[in-house]
Amino acid sequence: MIYDATVPLRPELPTYPGERGARLELVKALARGDKADVRELTLGIHTGTHVDAPAHFIAGGKTVEALPLEVLVGPCRVVDVEAAPHCTAAALEAAVGRDVPERLLLRTRNSTGPAPVWASPQFETGFAAIAHDGAQWLVERGVKLVGVDYLSIEPFEAPEPLTHRILLGAGVVAIEGLDLRAVPAGAYRLHCLPIPLVGAEGAPARVLLETRWRLRFW
Amino acid sequence: MIYDATVPLRPELPTYPGERGARLELVKALARGDKADVRELTLGIHTGTHVDAPAHFIAGGKTVEALPLEVLVGPCRVVDVEAAPHCTAAALEAAVGRDVPERLLLRTRNSTGPAPVWASPQFETGFAAIAHDGAQWLVERGVKLVGVDYLSIEPFEAPEPLTHRILLGAGVVAIEGLDLRAVPAGAYRLHCLPIPLVGAEGAPARVLLETRWRLRFW
Repeated sequence: MIYDATVPLRPELPTYPGERGARLELVKALARGDKADVRELTLGIHTGTHVDAPAHFIAGGKTVEALPLEVLVGPCRVVDVEAAPHCTAAALEAAVGRDVPERLLLRTRNSTGPAPVWASPQFETGFAAIAHDGAQWLVERGVKLVGVDYLSIEPFEAPEPLTHRILLGAGVVAIEGLDLRAVPAGAYRLHCLPIPLVGAEGAPARVLLETRWRLRFW
Repeated sequence: MIYDATVPLRPELPTYPGERGARLELVKALARGDKADVRELTLGIHTGTHVDAPAHFIAGGKTVEALPLEVLVGPCRVVDVEAAPHCTAAALEAAVGRDVPERLLLRTRNSTGPAPVWASPQFETGFAAIAHDGAQWLVERGVKLVGVDYLSIEPFEAPEPLTHRILLGAGVVAIEGLDLRAVPAGAYRLHCLPIPLVGAEGAPARVLLETRWRLRFW
């Protein structure tokens, strides 16, 4: 079974303040007598489900087309983590335990609380993110990819973007904007495929989680 | 082992005539004293490696976010096919044989000839595509997804877009703009993940091909 953890891109999708959302322009139209429908896309890169590459916050860091497939595809764990208000080192330790996976997706109150953030028609500032000591915990335990269930790994109120600097500075790939509401905690195979935008600090991605309940020849 | 059959998106990538390529605008910059690099993307949807959904040519047809994952992900065959100049029914029959897969990627002279089209800095009009009787052959044999190794499934000189109408009219998913130069013919697992642009007739996609030489628990 495959779960789609990607948020469909629509013009009305909430975006982080200052971020340009997704807009489609119909430049050819069957309804106007053209032979085909053809659209053009304008998109802030950090809209919806997307990957942050190190270059987003680190001068000279890796850009998104250079992220290794060996990190973006492979075994992954989705954990339910108590974020009160954010994912601290202690909360991560309690949720993940000692066997820390290389790829970790954090399912928080954003997804499981009484008012899931993606259900809101507007951007919600009170979302759960990764506390600075949580970011440090992830780096120290060798996590190579971390994903969160709303639009930033950084607490909205953080005066300085330390979570980004700690994680991206250590070369960790971040997935922001996952929709994990329907994805139970557990072990999966992750398929995180960003569009290869050469030289960009991130890119929209389609993110699938495949259950591992059957033996496959793949 | 995983092959990446996606063309990296750069401003100078050749595009089909009239198609707007990929452009990135740096709206925040570390080098200008901002806390992060942030870019915005403008993209003609049919630039580089992308999926055509039925709505591209069929009024009321399925749009790209509604394409089923069961078609986009799964066993796939890459075949070397003689395209002289295009992939006819006879050429497909000779290349594929009687056991026709649901997902089929066509590797033609575009990739294997003396002057691979993706090696050219400009759009090449003489590319190999799918002849109309080839499209009919694919539909009659139950192919659900077909991929080509340059920017259109349609012969450039076709007076009417019959190949598109035949394939998309039958609900076949088309992948255009694959780079199959380094991908040997054979059996793979396909991972074709388009960005879920709601209501769009297509979308850029990251396309991976995974070899099936080892037993996996996924």
